[in-house]
Amino acid sequence: MAQASSQLSALELPSVSWRRRHLLGLEELSAEEIRTVLEVASRFAQVPATAPLPELLQGKTVVNLFFEDSTRTRTSFALAVRRLGGEVIDFQASASSLSKGETILDTARTIEAMGVDAVVIRHRTPGAPHLLAQNLQASVINAGDGPHEHPTQALLDMLTILQHRGSLEGLTVALVGDIAHSRTARSNIWGLTRLGAHVILCGPATLVSRRWEALGVEVSYSLDDILPRCDVLNLLRIQFERQQSRPFPSVREYAHLYAMNRQRLEQAKPNVLIMAPGPINRGVEITADVADGSHSVILKQVTNGVAVRMAVLWLCLCVAQQDGQP
Amino acid sequence: MAQASSQLSALELPSVSWRRRHLLGLEELSAEEIRTVLEVASRFAQVPATAPLPELLQGKTVVNLFFEDSTRTRTSFALAVRRLGGEVIDFQASASSLSKGETILDTARTIEAMGVDAVVIRHRTPGAPHLLAQNLQASVINAGDGPHEHPTQALLDMLTILQHRGSLEGLTVALVGDIAHSRTARSNIWGLTRLGAHVILCGPATLVSRRWEALGVEVSYSLDDILPRCDVLNLLRIQFERQQSRPFPSVREYAHLYAMNRQRLEQAKPNVLIMAPGPINRGVEITADVADGSHSVILKQVTNGVAVRMAVLWLCLCVAQQDGQP
Amino acid sequence: MAQASSQLSALELPSVSWRRRHLLGLEELSAEEIRTVLEVASRFAQVPATAPLPELLQGKTVVNLFFEDSTRTRTSFALAVRRLGGEVIDFQASASSLSKGETILDTARTIEAMGVDAVVIRHRTPGAPHLLAQNLQASVINAGDGPHEHPTQALLDMLTILQHRGSLEGLTVALVGDIAHSRTARSNIWGLTRLGAHVILCGPATLVSRRWEALGVEVSYSLDDILPRCDVLNLLRIQFERQQSRPFPSVREYAHLYAMNRQRLEQAKPNVLIMAPGPINRGVEITADVADGSHSVILKQVTNGVAVRMAVLWLCLCVAQQDGQP
Repeated sequence: MAQASSQLSALELPSVSWRRRHLLGLEELSAEEIRTVLEVASRFAQVPATAPLPELLQGKTVVNLFFEDSTRTRTSFALAVRRLGGEVIDFQASASSLSKGETILDTARTIEAMGVDAVVIRHRTPGAPHLLAQNLQASVINAGDGPHEHPTQALLDMLTILQHRGSLEGLTVALVGDIAHSRTARSNIWGLTRLGAHVILCGPATLVSRRWEALGVEVSYSLDDILPRCDVLNLLRIQFERQQSRPFPSVREYAHLYAMNRQRLEQAKPNVLIMAPGPINRGVEITADVADGSHSVILKQVTNGVAVRMAVLWLCLCVAQQDGQP
Repeated sequence: MAQASSQLSALELPSVSWRRRHLLGLEELSAEEIRTVLEVASRFAQVPATAPLPELLQGKTVVNLFFEDSTRTRTSFALAVRRLGGEVIDFQASASSLSKGETILDTARTIEAMGVDAVVIRHRTPGAPHLLAQNLQASVINAGDGPHEHPTQALLDMLTILQHRGSLEGLTVALVGDIAHSRTARSNIWGLTRLGAHVILCGPATLVSRRWEALGVEVSYSLDDILPRCDVLNLLRIQFERQQSRPFPSVREYAHLYAMNRQRLEQAKPNVLIMAPGPINRGVEITADVADGSHSVILKQVTNGVAVRMAVLWLCLCVAQQDGQP
Repeated sequence: MAQASSQLSALELPSVSWRRRHLLGLEELSAEEIRTVLEVASRFAQVPATAPLPELLQGKTVVNLFFEDSTRTRTSFALAVRRLGGEVIDFQASASSLSKGETILDTARTIEAMGVDAVVIRHRTPGAPHLLAQNLQASVINAGDGPHEHPTQALLDMLTILQHRGSLEGLTVALVGDIAHSRTARSNIWGLTRLGAHVILCGPATLVSRRWEALGVEVSYSLDDILPRCDVLNLLRIQFERQQSRPFPSVREYAHLYAMNRQRLEQAKPNVLIMAPGPINRGVEITADVADGSHSVILKQVTNGVAVRMAVLWLCLCVAQQDGQP
């Protein structure tokens, strides 16, 4: 315990200001708020996993309330909670009272009544976390609401870029692939543009619409055209399970036009970063040699995911003034 | 740790006498034993969730052995164990050796052999917990055995009434709805009558039988008739998943006759308590305005559930004299 | 904590030498290495479950990565990790990214990137743990790879024999039943022969092949023939779920020829040990009276399983020199 304390002070956490109890999306965050999360996460990322900080969430209980399967994100949140000394409860929504006619809000209120301090929710309906936030005393963290937002994913993407480039200001970041179904894309657009990056959305016309230009981003249908200008390529998975009709003739056709491979890497900037939110489909959006190559920071993103979630939980549960919540 | 110790002494736990290693049902408990559980639970309910008592179950391991899905009760037990400093293991019965031909008793013995101190069991067969209790050294806690008993649910119902009325003696408590399939009803009947309450069972004739009168309770088929006399209404969910044939013409018909709504609330005592074991079906046994209204103590019941389970675990695992077990 | 420390020293753990980060199978272990695991496990088996050793894996995180259902083995590993003070994460492979096209290696690398120190893997493909071991920095423990190996099961079997006989040298151990599909049989063959036991494989010709004799074991098709010579009978379950065609006319026929029952027990040595890896099928490979009788050490095997897994985790995670890894 003493070790943890001294480590905590060694961390020299910045004296942060944070007033939100909930993290629902990046759209609502100011540039200053995003910078605060990234600064805290960057400190947490320096703490070895084997030497956690068990005092920060001591006595707090966090529930993982996932209505869609997601072992990666759920595990990442669970590890974040445990490393800060909190308790984490997995609420298996599929096996739950919902099949007995209970509303999602009653489920969440019931969990809260058991003495839970934060609800990490994934749900296929956009706005589900917002509904909970309006009705619970507990903190609500959005772990993905349909195609809407996935704020911690975008924050971990941004932290990874920051660690390699020092700043997002003026960088060109391309989000490639299935923009239409991607909450990761939406959250990245809000976050990246707010911190001064230039965002390009790139993919087949069936998955990327010109309407996105209204958000201040560039839209392109040719990866080869934009490739030489990009500092970062974030390769989104084609979410076959969300498609109702085929958005392109074949996987081979998609890979031909949009997969990141060795030939394309030669056309890119020498220090281009290759990112992917995962799970990756080798041979579809990325070839194996690029995924495992020196430009890839895919596993670094995963590592940063835990640090970002530690930061979000600590800020919303411990730093936020209860009265400061909008 | 020191904080927990001083808090523990601040709790001033009464010097209780408790000789049972198992909690199988309320039928077998004396009024004195029920009062003991409620007294301890009421002390635990005063401990903030953020300041648990991690010394009481230190070094003890409890397994949640649920053969029927129940996220609520399982989560409540898990939180109770963790707040007392014990380890909890979730044994997913559906994914287990049972599909390979193992008997329930061999499954339980195997778990016990791994070094488990208590088995919390839910099973669709009445008497399954009793079978385990006869064959294990570990404590056995019944978390619901078919339509038979669900003792911790009844205890949390009683604790909630006690907190609002001070005593159960002389109160009139109506259990409304699906009595036939309800283990909650059975456990409440034993517990409430033993502590001096008058119990009314109310519901359609297909779900409530006159035979219950042999247990010393009143049977009624009209909620409107009994409403003005009731101090507490406990609204049981219609367990559609347990019905083999339709017990009433339609949900609308049921709601018309038995749902607790604003009109009926006006006919009730001014301080009537509205309870429900949950999950609730808004619009069936209760309307939304009543569920969320000032008479409802539904979420308080959930909170008390953790305290009651803490009390039961502590009494059976720590206080009970091993040689005193019947 | 001080209590745990003093207990640890009271354990007087032998000054062991261990250089492997992974435990993939017993085939690759020397007799000396097997003896080391069993010696440490035998010390851990003396520690009461209620007084764990929470400093040995403090700060370490172990993931249970099970691609086949196995509540018993998974729970045993989870308890082993917790008793040594480590964190354990359950990665539900069925609900995971694998259904989204991710390779097993990418799944494992992703988990590792979250800050995991060991991966306990069960997979239906022989060699899956070896693939991970070649590509991860984390320790890899094989919890069963198809019909290939299940080293911790064999180690717990051997520990149980040692506790009752003092040595394996010169003992005759029969593995009875479904040898063809049994990873437990393979691991036992490697381990037992290496420590000087004589191994007999016994079962119907459709499940036991003469080709096994090349491994230095005896093959028999008649339990009654070999029974009087055996010091230990390890009764393997017929894995009906792995059979593609019926390997024998009927269960009754199998039981008639190979079930251990009271009559056969009378033909065996007076101090014969009856073992089974479980889950047992009462009435198939073993009758109820023998399973529950005085020769049976089946539940002792389960208890020893936790101690063996504690030993393996401690050796691979704490004692192994990173540079000593083959």
